[in-house]
Amino acid sequence: MSGNTIGTLFAVTNFGESHGPAIGCVIDGCPPGLALSEADIQADLDRRRPGTSRHVTQRQEPDQVEILSGVYEGRTTGTPIALLIRNTDQRSKDYAAIAQSFRPGHADYTYWHKYGVRDPRGGGRSSARLTAPTVAAGAVARKWLAERYGTVLRGCMTQIGDIAIPFEGWEHVPHNPFFAPVADVSALEDYMDALRRAGDSCGARIRVQATRVPVGLGEPLFDKLDADIAHALMGLNAVKGVEIGAGFASVAQRGTTHGDSLSPEGFLSNNAGGILGGISTGQDIEASIAIKPTSSIISPRQSIDIHGQPAEVVTKGRHDPCVGIRATPIAEALLALVVMDHALRQRAQCGDVRQDVPPIPAVPRTPGSL
Amino acid sequence: MSGNTIGTLFAVTNFGESHGPAIGCVIDGCPPGLALSEADIQADLDRRRPGTSRHVTQRQEPDQVEILSGVYEGRTTGTPIALLIRNTDQRSKDYAAIAQSFRPGHADYTYWHKYGVRDPRGGGRSSARLTAPTVAAGAVARKWLAERYGTVLRGCMTQIGDIAIPFEGWEHVPHNPFFAPVADVSALEDYMDALRRAGDSCGARIRVQATRVPVGLGEPLFDKLDADIAHALMGLNAVKGVEIGAGFASVAQRGTTHGDSLSPEGFLSNNAGGILGGISTGQDIEASIAIKPTSSIISPRQSIDIHGQPAEVVTKGRHDPCVGIRATPIAEALLALVVMDHALRQRAQCGDVRQDVPPIPAVPRTPGSL
Amino acid sequence: MSGNTIGTLFAVTNFGESHGPAIGCVIDGCPPGLALSEADIQADLDRRRPGTSRHVTQRQEPDQVEILSGVYEGRTTGTPIALLIRNTDQRSKDYAAIAQSFRPGHADYTYWHKYGVRDPRGGGRSSARLTAPTVAAGAVARKWLAERYGTVLRGCMTQIGDIAIPFEGWEHVPHNPFFAPVADVSALEDYMDALRRAGDSCGARIRVQATRVPVGLGEPLFDKLDADIAHALMGLNAVKGVEIGAGFASVAQRGTTHGDSLSPEGFLSNNAGGILGGISTGQDIEASIAIKPTSSIISPRQSIDIHGQPAEVVTKGRHDPCVGIRATPIAEALLALVVMDHALRQRAQCGDVRQDVPPIPAVPRTPGSL
Amino acid sequence: MSGNTIGTLFAVTNFGESHGPAIGCVIDGCPPGLALSEADIQADLDRRRPGTSRHVTQRQEPDQVEILSGVYEGRTTGTPIALLIRNTDQRSKDYAAIAQSFRPGHADYTYWHKYGVRDPRGGGRSSARLTAPTVAAGAVARKWLAERYGTVLRGCMTQIGDIAIPFEGWEHVPHNPFFAPVADVSALEDYMDALRRAGDSCGARIRVQATRVPVGLGEPLFDKLDADIAHALMGLNAVKGVEIGAGFASVAQRGTTHGDSLSPEGFLSNNAGGILGGISTGQDIEASIAIKPTSSIISPRQSIDIHGQPAEVVTKGRHDPCVGIRATPIAEALLALVVMDHALRQRAQCGDVRQDVPPIPAVPRTPGSL
Repeated sequence: MSGNTIGTLFAVTNFGESHGPAIGCVIDGCPPGLALSEADIQADLDRRRPGTSRHVTQRQEPDQVEILSGVYEGRTTGTPIALLIRNTDQRSKDYAAIAQSFRPGHADYTYWHKYGVRDPRGGGRSSARLTAPTVAAGAVARKWLAERYGTVLRGCMTQIGDIAIPFEGWEHVPHNPFFAPVADVSALEDYMDALRRAGDSCGARIRVQATRVPVGLGEPLFDKLDADIAHALMGLNAVKGVEIGAGFASVAQRGTTHGDSLSPEGFLSNNAGGILGGISTGQDIEASIAIKPTSSIISPRQSIDIHGQPAEVVTKGRHDPCVGIRATPIAEALLALVVMDHALRQRAQCGDVRQDVPPIPAVPRTPGSL
Repeated sequence: MSGNTIGTLFAVTNFGESHGPAIGCVIDGCPPGLALSEADIQADLDRRRPGTSRHVTQRQEPDQVEILSGVYEGRTTGTPIALLIRNTDQRSKDYAAIAQSFRPGHADYTYWHKYGVRDPRGGGRSSARLTAPTVAAGAVARKWLAERYGTVLRGCMTQIGDIAIPFEGWEHVPHNPFFAPVADVSALEDYMDALRRAGDSCGARIRVQATRVPVGLGEPLFDKLDADIAHALMGLNAVKGVEIGAGFASVAQRGTTHGDSLSPEGFLSNNAGGILGGISTGQDIEASIAIKPTSSIISPRQSIDIHGQPAEVVTKGRHDPCVGIRATPIAEALLALVVMDHALRQRAQCGDVRQDVPPIPAVPRTPGSL
Repeated sequence: MSGNTIGTLFAVTNFGESHGPAIGCVIDGCPPGLALSEADIQADLDRRRPGTSRHVTQRQEPDQVEILSGVYEGRTTGTPIALLIRNTDQRSKDYAAIAQSFRPGHADYTYWHKYGVRDPRGGGRSSARLTAPTVAAGAVARKWLAERYGTVLRGCMTQIGDIAIPFEGWEHVPHNPFFAPVADVSALEDYMDALRRAGDSCGARIRVQATRVPVGLGEPLFDKLDADIAHALMGLNAVKGVEIGAGFASVAQRGTTHGDSLSPEGFLSNNAGGILGGISTGQDIEASIAIKPTSSIISPRQSIDIHGQPAEVVTKGRHDPCVGIRATPIAEALLALVVMDHALRQRAQCGDVRQDVPPIPAVPRTPGSL
Repeated sequence: MSGNTIGTLFAVTNFGESHGPAIGCVIDGCPPGLALSEADIQADLDRRRPGTSRHVTQRQEPDQVEILSGVYEGRTTGTPIALLIRNTDQRSKDYAAIAQSFRPGHADYTYWHKYGVRDPRGGGRSSARLTAPTVAAGAVARKWLAERYGTVLRGCMTQIGDIAIPFEGWEHVPHNPFFAPVADVSALEDYMDALRRAGDSCGARIRVQATRVPVGLGEPLFDKLDADIAHALMGLNAVKGVEIGAGFASVAQRGTTHGDSLSPEGFLSNNAGGILGGISTGQDIEASIAIKPTSSIISPRQSIDIHGQPAEVVTKGRHDPCVGIRATPIAEALLALVVMDHALRQRAQCGDVRQDVPPIPAVPRTPGSL
């Protein structure tokens, strides 16, 4: 109940600090019989790994995952899967100076008041480094979902700072460090280079999508599928907003246009983002998140120290000038964890439900459209 | 785990259907010794009650709450508080026609596929009527929070359809049916009248705020305070987006402006919305939600029936043309429930933490500003 | 988390006090489509009802249950089932005298220190009256289990005070007020009459059994099926001991006799009580509980008052001289709730597991034997 | 929800298999500021370690614990404490022969049917080796409880096979391999030597006690303190029975003797075992468990193979002839975990409760007496 577990039936408990000996997680509730190896997990970890372009932190972490339990002869056994990632490149000296003051926009102030003690090394527990085990757990969930339902999870950047990024195609996403769905990212690179020179940082907007999700996932009243997605995504470091489907644009829509019509061939639009009444419709689940600018910037900031006295803070160390750049695979992993959890919850309660009429098929739509 | 409970330590389990005999909830975990009567709860229920203006559903429900347990001689005993609200004005005949087809934008389709059975009377479990017990539970939470910490929860409408509503002052909110923070709501009334004549509906944007929240509430890693707020608010019927603090605007901000500076007199801005690293800072907690247009509209819509055949749907009955109009007290209640739960979680784990230096005071700000 | 909910997927939240307006529960997670009416529940409630013989409390409570939600047109909908039982025969004046002192063996002392406030009317929340909603919820579980798996739950008294009760046959159990598996209960009646005349009370031992439980229910490591049964049964008022299978007799057994051998025709004994490694074997689940003597006795007892001063306590009112007499249907209900919960948990995680070789059949055994 | 977590606020998630790379646990919810090092934990681990006498398994495991997270500069930070124990002495070849058949009294049969797959090496997940992380977590709990309340946890063996062990004094417990409270254990040694020569095994009875537990711990209705203790202890491998206080002896007691009288100087007896109405009284908490004879014996047993055909099973490998011998520190750890969890739950809900009259002191009693 101290908040380090996500999910109820596919429950992932995360542990570790940025500069402690190791980070990792324990997955409890994974169905047995799933073929699983470290290579299955490593691929996703590598997508969020730091140090892969000049636009992200230069910390070098191989993020090599070790499966400690729950897998026997290459298959999950139904018992907890413990995943371990050793920290290797901790330069704790970088952080000694900031232990005595609170960085604006950081969790320093709140951790210190909450716990009365704080691990200042690399942000300790509040570091985005702790998303690595989440990505690892998400890799297990997406593998099971893919094999069981054909579910596909993907995401892309749709805005960075002031620059809106058009959707040209999913095929571009793996080929640039921004996870941008465009062929040419030179404008983004120029933008980031200028920002870095200015000692500043910027935010980003990320879109994440799950296709081929079975109809019926999500629990009224409170644990709606969209509510749990919002919980997972808002819980990601630096996220300040979450939208499902049409999101904030729906405020200005009319009922005659927002409500997605149905035909025997499928839904005719997807303003709902694949969720109605908190339950999946079988359409693509669409979510979008706002990520704030990185708080760790080299420009001096006005703050106070732990004695309440004024202090100027300059954050050195190795930081992402836009934490949103590496957020796409993390958001995908979080969405996978939520869908996975609800898939198990659904068959627990409704495993005997059979319909004479199957769900309507998804209407083929332009890729990237809502 | 079927999703009808919100909160872990202040746990509220909701039950009932729109046209069943009764709706209600059970609050488990309320601290003992709180003075509590039905009148304390009724005041909040009356704020969300239907039938109070021409702009909302004309269903007449007194929403009279009965405390069934957990209170002895006017004080909570620490045992479960069961709250009961009898349904009185059910016109189920209105809904007979729609039992065979799926209303666009409604939960009909998903409930039917999830459960294989569906209570069509008034939307059954998916009705916004089920927010009444939530408001009732929220009233208990806000009373405890007010007495213990001086916490105040309030909300207002900031946009309806296309119309952005400026913030003139909290004092206006109780004096108009929109919970709008403006003196003159004639423009809103004209807008709604035209919409109703057109047989259409619109969305709304609601802001909700908690002041005097103690520093330190919220649990890393997953159950961050903002994550739990997002879960609660996105779980409210018709909500498609949630923002904390600067929200989606933070995407285009720079780190030098977004990160709230600190001084010995307090934080100098509140882009964070009162939460850093998932933990309350002591500043005002600020959240904003997008509510989609009501799906129940009189204009005919294209759909299918339960056999998969084409069907035209016209929704009669008594509906809110903008469900956002009555959403403000519900959003306040949900925020109260989340803050309450985390207040108990905080003292469970960190009840012994004492700081030599107290939290910095909140800087006096213009009311309504972030 | 305040302990008033049992079960994780079939979650029953109990509310009410002995002399409050009502008692009841909310069942969350019941599978949809189960035929259910108040009559289905009432039958079990009538079995535990007070006032049905001279050997139990003379309080007259019809214990009429009302289904408030979760059932539509005679079938469960998958949404929460709220069950309400109004209290009718509260004679609170009986309890006024004891509000100022602590009855030995009662929860008075602990409630007062825990909560700082205490509802003394009829024991308030600590009254055995609160087992009525548990029985009601258990009736729903056993109906689903019976229809889905053919599971049968039954129990009987095996000892009352000093008198061990031989097992003559299940068919006798419904025909005497003791739930004793014997044709002639005159010895038990004489024993109880003498005890009542002496103003004293005695304990009892109850056996409870579930047959036709599917193999595979129960979760290692902590939520073993036997662990959850122990939790449920030890949580019943006045229970001081729980055994599974051979129970405490297994201490003096040898491994060569205790371990139940297997043959193609089935297990050859059932010292395990139907559970190995915390998981059901498909054999009968067998549990046994020790119930302490009723604390509410008319004989004067030495105690203290709420100011810490010596006080003599005489408990008047209407009490069971042996609370074990009515415990059998309650223990059955609790066992049903645990099995039900684990049936849902099992198909959540392992719903895809298929074995080429089915479980071995249960070996026909003498009824009543382990 | 797959049962590998114990506790709600002090939540311990266990992972690992007997012959996998490692075992361990994650403790979520530990209060910050507790001084903690690996040495604090190692002492308890060494008490349950195998290979320390001829009466237990000869497997040699150093059981060296590593703290991976949650501790900074020697103090807990309030974030998850991950504990890792590498397996070193796995002789998996010993188990190859048994992978095809089901050992009587073992979890082989149930795991195979539940999960469809089974790690046969050393019993996999069902091995008593998995109690090591529980002992490690318990060490953290007991340290906090000792510092906060002066709580002391201790246990001893009270029966082995047919031999009842008298209580001579706690001081003898650390000085013999049986955790027996007697000066001379030669009779026990002779008994075990004979048993081992016979290729057989026996059961044991263990008593466990917590002193200086604050009054008020435990949650009605279902999560009573005794219910949670029963859950924890029955969840320990091989346990078939749990008693609180007078336990099964209370069946034959009268109300006039069972109910513990109170005086201004304290309770006059402790049949309740320190718990009334599910809530701690402040007296010693007393529990007792029955442990079945080890199932892994060298004598041939009748069984079946995974194809349902008859098979004779002989269990070689290194096994404890009485698993109860090493159970005492484990039972203490489990009791510590339950008390710890309820200590946090109590201050969450009732942290503001203040009594004018303090709890009555515990009456000095003969050590070892109930």
